[in-house]
Amino acid sequence: MDPNTSGLVQKLAEAGQSHLLQFWKELSTKEQQELFQDLQGMDFLEINKFFKSAMETSSSTKHEKMDGRMEPVPREVLGSVTRDRESLKDWEAKGLDCIGQSKVAVLLLAGGQGTRLGFSHPKGMYDVGLPSHKTLFQIQAERILKLQQLAKQKTTVNCCVPWYIMTSGRTMESTKNFFSEHKYFGLDKDNVIFFQQGMLPAMDYNGKIILESQGKLSMAPDGNGGLYRALGNQGILDDMQRRGVKFIHVYCVDNILVKVADPTFIGFCVQKGADCGAKVVEKTNPTEAVGVVCKVDGRYQVVEYSEITLATAEKRSSDGRLMFSAGNVANHFFSFSFLRDVVQEYEPQLQHHVAQKKIPFVDVQGHIITPEKPNGIKMEKFVFDIFQFAKTFVVYEVLREDEFSPLKNADAQDGKDTPTTARHALMSLHHRWVLNAGGHFIDENGRRVPAIPSLKDGTDLPIKCEISPLVSYAGEGLEKLVKGRELQATLMIDEHGVHELVKNGV
Amino acid sequence: MDPNTSGLVQKLAEAGQSHLLQFWKELSTKEQQELFQDLQGMDFLEINKFFKSAMETSSSTKHEKMDGRMEPVPREVLGSVTRDRESLKDWEAKGLDCIGQSKVAVLLLAGGQGTRLGFSHPKGMYDVGLPSHKTLFQIQAERILKLQQLAKQKTTVNCCVPWYIMTSGRTMESTKNFFSEHKYFGLDKDNVIFFQQGMLPAMDYNGKIILESQGKLSMAPDGNGGLYRALGNQGILDDMQRRGVKFIHVYCVDNILVKVADPTFIGFCVQKGADCGAKVVEKTNPTEAVGVVCKVDGRYQVVEYSEITLATAEKRSSDGRLMFSAGNVANHFFSFSFLRDVVQEYEPQLQHHVAQKKIPFVDVQGHIITPEKPNGIKMEKFVFDIFQFAKTFVVYEVLREDEFSPLKNADAQDGKDTPTTARHALMSLHHRWVLNAGGHFIDENGRRVPAIPSLKDGTDLPIKCEISPLVSYAGEGLEKLVKGRELQATLMIDEHGVHELVKNGV
Repeated sequence: MDPNTSGLVQKLAEAGQSHLLQFWKELSTKEQQELFQDLQGMDFLEINKFFKSAMETSSSTKHEKMDGRMEPVPREVLGSVTRDRESLKDWEAKGLDCIGQSKVAVLLLAGGQGTRLGFSHPKGMYDVGLPSHKTLFQIQAERILKLQQLAKQKTTVNCCVPWYIMTSGRTMESTKNFFSEHKYFGLDKDNVIFFQQGMLPAMDYNGKIILESQGKLSMAPDGNGGLYRALGNQGILDDMQRRGVKFIHVYCVDNILVKVADPTFIGFCVQKGADCGAKVVEKTNPTEAVGVVCKVDGRYQVVEYSEITLATAEKRSSDGRLMFSAGNVANHFFSFSFLRDVVQEYEPQLQHHVAQKKIPFVDVQGHIITPEKPNGIKMEKFVFDIFQFAKTFVVYEVLREDEFSPLKNADAQDGKDTPTTARHALMSLHHRWVLNAGGHFIDENGRRVPAIPSLKDGTDLPIKCEISPLVSYAGEGLEKLVKGRELQATLMIDEHGVHELVKNGV
Repeated sequence: MDPNTSGLVQKLAEAGQSHLLQFWKELSTKEQQELFQDLQGMDFLEINKFFKSAMETSSSTKHEKMDGRMEPVPREVLGSVTRDRESLKDWEAKGLDCIGQSKVAVLLLAGGQGTRLGFSHPKGMYDVGLPSHKTLFQIQAERILKLQQLAKQKTTVNCCVPWYIMTSGRTMESTKNFFSEHKYFGLDKDNVIFFQQGMLPAMDYNGKIILESQGKLSMAPDGNGGLYRALGNQGILDDMQRRGVKFIHVYCVDNILVKVADPTFIGFCVQKGADCGAKVVEKTNPTEAVGVVCKVDGRYQVVEYSEITLATAEKRSSDGRLMFSAGNVANHFFSFSFLRDVVQEYEPQLQHHVAQKKIPFVDVQGHIITPEKPNGIKMEKFVFDIFQFAKTFVVYEVLREDEFSPLKNADAQDGKDTPTTARHALMSLHHRWVLNAGGHFIDENGRRVPAIPSLKDGTDLPIKCEISPLVSYAGEGLEKLVKGRELQATLMIDEHGVHELVKNGV
């Protein structure tokens, strides 16, 4: 473990990263060991190359010129739950067939920590305070279980939806332990496959890797687009091939409403012969902070909200809708063959995006400094960077209130995307399921409650209602439980029946 | 002041309201005087009639049957800022002409107190915390001033937009004093006309008027539809006629974005030959708590959200939009002749709506009780109740983010319609005005800020930017001030120029 004899000193010198050893003599033996190992495992020339091309792309003025090149998604590649209602049943049946034939896998992006949420564990372990206190992981696991049942009802044979879970160096251990402790929430352990995205060092603007302490590099996951590299180098593609997976649904852990392996979305994509598809929600306010799926120079991509001028964001079609309204929600479909081509061929061509950040660092005296202005960059790829390589790209528009409520931030005044908004979104959806199945809610005085709850004291208080995914995946199968019944909140419906937890506030 | 000799006892007995004097002997002389005066001024037989017909309507099952009778607003009576862009300039010009000819008056509904807001003064006196700390009243007054200037520029003659302000018994004095103290915010005092809506007693379910203390009736304003009765019995219609007012814009005080006497809306209504028009915003979520303008049995009305079943709320047109999407925002147009007919002929035919409330009362021992369940009703009419009498009714759809942000509740976690949401809505609009006029915002490091601000720490932080209505009514006239300039928030533009209040947080 001598940096000199091992060639590490020379390797660092060649890469212009010699400063990483500046505190070597002040480190304990254990710290030296750890730093040595970290540095030995890294390809500095590759990192420098990433830095160079990321910075070049970032400093080019492409964003200024983006507006004129943007085109909206044409109607013919768009499927919509509100505009194509007559096709939904067909798509759903097609998707269930694929699932029933064990051709569909689910891929969860769960590499991030709940930092903004104020939660130091993997976000999927978060309990938003539902009556059941289920975590995001459990909700998603149970949706997969239910979907396997639904597919079996249709095809009469057992099927399996393998669940690939991408963690990062920071979340791998705790994620695996959590699943193990909870017996994989009823799923077959062999069908829950964990893998790990890569990490990259934070760099200063001169391309020097930043030390976060005297013996430790500042490292961060390489973005959700790190998926593709990890799929290749961790044998996941091979695993998919072995299992005969043909279609993959990729989504992000933070969306409490996510329809995991949504058969309608999958069926739509398969019927259209798509190799790549994006589920979107309609953007209705020009300044909403959401990226939009569109064409640029004839190729599909997501243009992020920070790249759009107001004039473009405000453009409208003749029907009055925003021209660029396909709001990206990190919810995608890939054919296996496309994914394989991406991993083996396309993704390595892509450079990283640059995110300017305030990155804590040690100064030459060895003091840890937390800067007040951005002092360096993190390098990331995005999962949607590869849309441009699709031969048949489709877009599927769904209703936000039914399918998208991400958990990003801690509860706070005027907070968006908080545990409270996530909890309310789920309960509101389940409330609507009960009403549409013919149930009624009554208040503590026995009076029917209006379908649309009124605002009280400024807070939108939804009917407290939660339905286990084990009972219903998307609202189906509830008539026999609630039709014609008068129900009182808090209502919980699970595999044991219908429960009215009248005294149990949420 | 003897209840017996004055005939009051008999009057009360005939009306079944004798209990109102049950504590007479226990009252001080002053209390007796006040109660006597209150009771002498009331028409109990009329109140009993109101109660009877309100309760009859309320207990009928019309709501259950409403759904099948509802029809959406047909396209031919709809004007839309997003779908009729080619007509907007014409409508605006027409509206400005009407204003320039002093044919347009503004009527403000300001009878409510800021109870839910936790503010014991008239809501128009509220300061939402803008950089200028202007109140809602001041913002609206300055919009009228600016509009008079714009109309003068067009027609080259002086014009006047009289401002009728409806207060209630609770807000009259303080409202008048506030305007007087602030010199009517630059408006001509003679053109600001205050009047007062009526009050009605709260009743228990048996039609007995509720005493809120031993010597005091529980009184409440008679709803914003009390407007019509007040217009007649306080000489406001006569005043309008004397001034030659032909068109009236009616709106509610709590909307910080309200385009007072919006020339485009007025021009649209006038060109369509409408006697009555409603400005609406698109309802995009089925369970949003907003009433919708629609036809019922062939006549226009607002169906309140509590009256709609989920199935109807979720209905969609073939274009995917909600079928009932015309969200009412208490923003209306009336021709003078229609308003006169309403006051003199139609409105008296309408019964009151019943609002079940928890109403504090004195029990027979004289103790004041605050009930935990609703124990009685308040009777209200709504300003939109008279839509059904219009011969030519039109609907004008505008963008929520440009025109509607009501102030209803105090700031609170997950609060809707709060001072913070109102402040942000105004600053976001003004930010967009600056960008569309060719200005740019830079951050403290001199870098251009994206047009769509990113979410930080879960809070949508708009660029702090406020433009005085005296400078721009709707975004016009800003090029000469900001075009090509790099500006730093907090930005204030007022009649004295462009100010960057860099150190001045909001």
